[in-house]
Amino acid sequence: MSDNTQIILVERPNGPLKESHFEIRHGEVPKPGPGEALVRSILLSQDAANRAWMAGATYKSAVNPGDVMHGYAVCEVIESNSPDLQPGQLVQGQAGWQQYAALPANALQRCADHRPLTRLLSIMGIAGKTAYHGLLNVSGIEAGETLLVSAAAGSVGSIVGQIGKIKGARVVGIAGGAAKCAWVRDELGFDACIDYKSAEMATALTEHCPDGIDVYFDNVGGDILQSAIFNMKYGGRISCCGAVSQYDGGPPTSPIGIPGLLVIKSLRMQGFLLMDFMDRDADAERDLSTWSDSGQIVIAEDVIEGLENAPRGLIGLLAGENRGKRMIRVGPDPS
Amino acid sequence: MSDNTQIILVERPNGPLKESHFEIRHGEVPKPGPGEALVRSILLSQDAANRAWMAGATYKSAVNPGDVMHGYAVCEVIESNSPDLQPGQLVQGQAGWQQYAALPANALQRCADHRPLTRLLSIMGIAGKTAYHGLLNVSGIEAGETLLVSAAAGSVGSIVGQIGKIKGARVVGIAGGAAKCAWVRDELGFDACIDYKSAEMATALTEHCPDGIDVYFDNVGGDILQSAIFNMKYGGRISCCGAVSQYDGGPPTSPIGIPGLLVIKSLRMQGFLLMDFMDRDADAERDLSTWSDSGQIVIAEDVIEGLENAPRGLIGLLAGENRGKRMIRVGPDPS
Repeated sequence: MSDNTQIILVERPNGPLKESHFEIRHGEVPKPGPGEALVRSILLSQDAANRAWMAGATYKSAVNPGDVMHGYAVCEVIESNSPDLQPGQLVQGQAGWQQYAALPANALQRCADHRPLTRLLSIMGIAGKTAYHGLLNVSGIEAGETLLVSAAAGSVGSIVGQIGKIKGARVVGIAGGAAKCAWVRDELGFDACIDYKSAEMATALTEHCPDGIDVYFDNVGGDILQSAIFNMKYGGRISCCGAVSQYDGGPPTSPIGIPGLLVIKSLRMQGFLLMDFMDRDADAERDLSTWSDSGQIVIAEDVIEGLENAPRGLIGLLAGENRGKRMIRVGPDPS
Repeated sequence: MSDNTQIILVERPNGPLKESHFEIRHGEVPKPGPGEALVRSILLSQDAANRAWMAGATYKSAVNPGDVMHGYAVCEVIESNSPDLQPGQLVQGQAGWQQYAALPANALQRCADHRPLTRLLSIMGIAGKTAYHGLLNVSGIEAGETLLVSAAAGSVGSIVGQIGKIKGARVVGIAGGAAKCAWVRDELGFDACIDYKSAEMATALTEHCPDGIDVYFDNVGGDILQSAIFNMKYGGRISCCGAVSQYDGGPPTSPIGIPGLLVIKSLRMQGFLLMDFMDRDADAERDLSTWSDSGQIVIAEDVIEGLENAPRGLIGLLAGENRGKRMIRVGPDPS
């Protein structure tokens, strides 16, 4: 336990992320200070926002060259200098791309021993809760409404659409490639899925949302957001979850017609972060576990083995190769 | 009563509006058809949105060359073919820039005989209600919050800031020119007012909103909206009421960082139209009349005599020459 494998960001990417922006190092396992705990990473979340963290400060501080790459992980407490945590407990927090981290106990959240532990990042974790709060508490959705979801095969989008169906909406996804679109329709049960790589978006939206869009759940920003705004119904709502088209060297575009189109169509655009809804997490956990236990939600997980594969995993995620929630298995489950 | 003075839009403006885009004609007083009423205009509202109507369809059909210019007016019913309206009653609706109009009775709204009748367009009408609903029912405002209001000397902005003060907010206005800014501060009671013609906006916002902006009430769009977005607090709200910087040949800009900044700061941007809140108009009327009767709101009206001055009035409004609610007196009050 003296070796701590770490992945360092060695250069700030200016354009598409590459493996050469990272370096593997073998550091020492840290000693936890007063009030800190030493944790061992089990599963590391991979999210498009990880790329945005490299560009500068966002809702958290930037990742700078020389830093261990930041990342959210499910961990086991190994040693604790805080009365709040005991060895063997499961926690989650910003442990970074490394095997071991010493973190203040109050920066770690206890989590239930929910097996398989992958669920703590997929349906019962960051993906499921982001989808739940972003759809139900940001935009809202009513039975009979038309819901458009971009990155529909991704970790959040795949769940948003399924919750939309449970709530009685007509759900249209957007994803890249015929195979992913078929999966979104056939396995996840969306009513339709537009392949943005082959379809002309304006035509496709007119075809699949002939009466306009009530709710657009936006994971991508850019041109697709623009097309959606043009096709929103009067009084429509846009839940702004992310802008993956902008993160990895994509052109920094903003939709035209802001604020004019918001005014004349009485549209609401609302950004959010998962942490805004901590006080309603119990609702999310209750509903998400009911829906997944009953099979109403198909759980899609994409687990890559080995911390050394984290750079490749994130690069692939930004290129859209994942289906459902991508994560890295850093170490074994506790027995 | 056989002559009906009308102002016609004779050319679609492509750039700043000029008097030459209009022509005065003398038509006939129309005969109301079945279900219609003949109305006589008393006071004609002038609003920045009038200019946007000339560019194309918005929340209503476009004004096209050859049309009587569209406009919202307080009128007296002269003759009625509908059981719902009687001669002598006061109504408001889209009567256009003309002395007489024949309109379907169901397109006209009855209004109280509230003297002076100018109040029906200012504090108790389109200006006051837009300010009320846009601030209280779109963005919301809490005591202790910082409220930024653009076009602060305008019909809506001047009231928004005063309602903000009543609700206990710290209110910072933005207006053009030192004299207007002094009026906004000294007469309307805003805490501060930034002169966008002389101040560097980023510096001024840092100075006057050092802890950031909780609520931005946007009447202008463009560069000021951009600066406001950069200075919004986490969880801030933007009430999108209009985009006057874009209407009159201004560059059609959109703020950069959409949706990224909305996501990382959990911002909400919401467009609205007055008609969205018809079911809550009674609340607005009750509160606005209380506040104006008690002197808590200073009523600012800018009345221009004579329909023939409507083109000049609108051109001046787009250039920001008005203080408070601009309107045209087309004819005398009913006795």
